[in-house]
Amino acid sequence: MSVPTRSPAEAEVLQANGGFYRAFSQGDAAAMDDLWAVRAEVACFHPGSPVVLGREAVLESWRQILRERPPFALRCDRPAVQLLGDTAIVTCYEGAGHQPAHLAATNVFVREDGRWRMVLHQAGPLSRPIPRPPTPSSFN
Amino acid sequence: MSVPTRSPAEAEVLQANGGFYRAFSQGDAAAMDDLWAVRAEVACFHPGSPVVLGREAVLESWRQILRERPPFALRCDRPAVQLLGDTAIVTCYEGAGHQPAHLAATNVFVREDGRWRMVLHQAGPLSRPIPRPPTPSSFN
Repeated sequence: MSVPTRSPAEAEVLQANGGFYRAFSQGDAAAMDDLWAVRAEVACFHPGSPVVLGREAVLESWRQILRERPPFALRCDRPAVQLLGDTAIVTCYEGAGHQPAHLAATNVFVREDGRWRMVLHQAGPLSRPIPRPPTPSSFN
Repeated sequence: MSVPTRSPAEAEVLQANGGFYRAFSQGDAAAMDDLWAVRAEVACFHPGSPVVLGREAVLESWRQILRERPPFALRCDRPAVQLLGDTAIVTCYEGAGHQPAHLAATNVFVREDGRWRMVLHQAGPLSRPIPRPPTPSSFN
């Protein structure tokens, strides 16, 4: 299976997107804090839950999740990038460990001071799990 | 309950966002087609389903939904706007008729030729329905 050609900007966005899944998987609250935008407004939908608005509330929700959940690796399968100038959208499927993906996700990034930083995350349940693709289309 | 002050750009985004819910509620496939971006890449997650990528596939999915579903009014409750230059994100809850909202939704728009047009829609189930707010915070 060939890897699709990606532009440098797409590669940068996927790198930032991978940072989100690494921060989650490693339970790294400081990395999670660092990857969210600091000037642009931010919002986050955790699966099945009401929206969390604003940086402080979003980061507090992540600190609580990372503190309370049992540790597990979260994958981002089949990421697709929409580049919109200084904004970029990543759509993907999220799966735990080696399990089929159980969540549909959107991650939106903006470029702040030359770095892609997250402004929106929405993850919601899939009706049917989606099998893990052959590597290398999982990006963490 | 006071209505929050909105900038002209926020009002424009909410107007475009309302167009999406009107097109759905009225089963208007032509209006649905018109409101999606034509140059920027687009993507759509219908509730519980895998992502649909690309304008033709997204519009075909909407034509099928509008053709096959029983007609009902879809509300957008408590929309919150994140303005990111020529991109804007709306987060909200979706409810049918007078029922509590049963879906969490993200809608992303870009400015194309002076018009805000949709580039992403994700709707996913809420674990607990969210009661309809007092008017006027539903925007259709």
